[in-house]
Amino acid sequence: MDEPLFVIPLWADLTAVGLGGIQGALFASGFRGQRRLDFLGVAIIGVVLGMGGGLIRDLLLNTTPVTLQSNWYLLTATVAALVGMLLSGVFARLNAVIVGLDALSMGLFGAFGTSKALALGLPVVPAVFVGVCAAVGGGILRDMLMGVPIAIMHVGSLYAVAAGVGCSALAVVHALGANLVIAAIIGIAVTAVIRLLAVIFDISLPEQRALYRRKVAVETTGIPIIKT
Amino acid sequence: MDEPLFVIPLWADLTAVGLGGIQGALFASGFRGQRRLDFLGVAIIGVVLGMGGGLIRDLLLNTTPVTLQSNWYLLTATVAALVGMLLSGVFARLNAVIVGLDALSMGLFGAFGTSKALALGLPVVPAVFVGVCAAVGGGILRDMLMGVPIAIMHVGSLYAVAAGVGCSALAVVHALGANLVIAAIIGIAVTAVIRLLAVIFDISLPEQRALYRRKVAVETTGIPIIKT
Amino acid sequence: MDEPLFVIPLWADLTAVGLGGIQGALFASGFRGQRRLDFLGVAIIGVVLGMGGGLIRDLLLNTTPVTLQSNWYLLTATVAALVGMLLSGVFARLNAVIVGLDALSMGLFGAFGTSKALALGLPVVPAVFVGVCAAVGGGILRDMLMGVPIAIMHVGSLYAVAAGVGCSALAVVHALGANLVIAAIIGIAVTAVIRLLAVIFDISLPEQRALYRRKVAVETTGIPIIKT
Repeated sequence: MDEPLFVIPLWADLTAVGLGGIQGALFASGFRGQRRLDFLGVAIIGVVLGMGGGLIRDLLLNTTPVTLQSNWYLLTATVAALVGMLLSGVFARLNAVIVGLDALSMGLFGAFGTSKALALGLPVVPAVFVGVCAAVGGGILRDMLMGVPIAIMHVGSLYAVAAGVGCSALAVVHALGANLVIAAIIGIAVTAVIRLLAVIFDISLPEQRALYRRKVAVETTGIPIIKT
Repeated sequence: MDEPLFVIPLWADLTAVGLGGIQGALFASGFRGQRRLDFLGVAIIGVVLGMGGGLIRDLLLNTTPVTLQSNWYLLTATVAALVGMLLSGVFARLNAVIVGLDALSMGLFGAFGTSKALALGLPVVPAVFVGVCAAVGGGILRDMLMGVPIAIMHVGSLYAVAAGVGCSALAVVHALGANLVIAAIIGIAVTAVIRLLAVIFDISLPEQRALYRRKVAVETTGIPIIKT
Repeated sequence: MDEPLFVIPLWADLTAVGLGGIQGALFASGFRGQRRLDFLGVAIIGVVLGMGGGLIRDLLLNTTPVTLQSNWYLLTATVAALVGMLLSGVFARLNAVIVGLDALSMGLFGAFGTSKALALGLPVVPAVFVGVCAAVGGGILRDMLMGVPIAIMHVGSLYAVAAGVGCSALAVVHALGANLVIAAIIGIAVTAVIRLLAVIFDISLPEQRALYRRKVAVETTGIPIIKT
């Protein structure tokens, strides 16, 4: 390890938390499902997106969650969620803002996850895995809490791909000898750019098709008849 | 820290586990959704509500789960779940019992979470957060496993608010110099009373409304068209 | 503890990861719900089923996740998921293969979970609990991510029962003085055989019925009117 005492600077960490919090509240405010979210529900989603990435990272690394060692993380996430709620009317016309914040905060959480994992001595592959989980984990929690299909699982997402390529770029650049900070900046940029391009050009992965076409009888509930 | 060796007494911990287990099984027994739960499903929900709060607390604190260090926790949760199943016919007419058990066990899990976090040296804000997660976490897991909308996310719950105010009261009283045990008792009482009053008077939070009214086109699936 | 330095051999661990990965991808490939999974979604489910059991075990035991200490786990899970996707056309006609792989990988994850817990000094009951969580946890994550009802919660599963009896058999045989390796082999066999017999003979648990019959008014959404 060339960074034995790797610490993500507090301002950078809080930036990710704040962007996640605003974005989460904006997303949840726009939600008009069968059951509306109340104020608290929107705030919870904001806090989950602000705090989720760091908590998942530290759980996977079995380290004490750094987001719970200071009052600032939760205060930042909460204030950001409130700001997101207040501004949701304005930003609804600026969809680009939501997408941009999302791409950036995903890049930040992914880069912090992978670089902390590398600094703790994890091999490259699991370090990238931790970064991807940190980047997409908040969104998975959000979708579970809101009761909507998990975004990264379905056609048209390209969510996890952006995080995976960005975190891999970080790991490769670091393995080639670059400083972890520079590697992290490259990783953040790669993730955010891929994500933005995917949205702008509406790129998605091909739907999964079995190698051999076949008919699958499906229950009306949408569960395959394959027994498990 | 004025309580360097803070330990929740086993009898108090097992009381919370037992109340949670009974309440979970009562709730799950009353469930008549598209797909019924079998015996095992009801028992699982009971165990999840009995064990969930403590497990979530210890995961967030990165301490060895105390609920897995002794046979008593799981035995208590399982027996409580069975008792809940057997008594579900009786208690169905006594809805107040379910609500009362729920309010009390939520107060216990919240107070144990916040006081353990404070004893471990966490700052006030994350200590309250850990308590709230411990108080409402079991219910979130229950709703996810049962496939119903997450209760704390929707209009009319006031669930997390009760836990948040109770855990905050605990932290404030403790910060003012009170013994952690006394602070915990006050926290439990505050949470339980708020929760009961909310049910009795049918209080709920105002639905989240955007600052500026606007029309949002929504897919039939209920997911906003905001791309993420 | 008679096995102070208990370590699951890498080849055995990777076998469980690989079987889980193949089985997960086969299952997800057969899925034809409202929203199809894309390539990535199928791969994610494979990785979740390959990695989930070990991660859940190590989270509950508060030990550093062994699956993230080497590149091999994720590489094995990913390759296995790809193999599962490629072979899904062939195996669709061989439902028995999916069920068999599932029974075997469940047995492996359960046995590794319980034996690691025993080796770390946990009492018998929580050790069995950790094994059951490791055995069924991957499937729960799968169902949550795919947005289908959680399999172990519903009539006809007998899923958790197989894991519970197998892990209990392991613990009993070990308590009687047998070597942990032999106990683990017995536990794996018991879990797999019960699971296979349950599928072959279509055995299920009786539906949960309240001791006293009663009418429960149910909302159209399927949520009981019991307030929580």
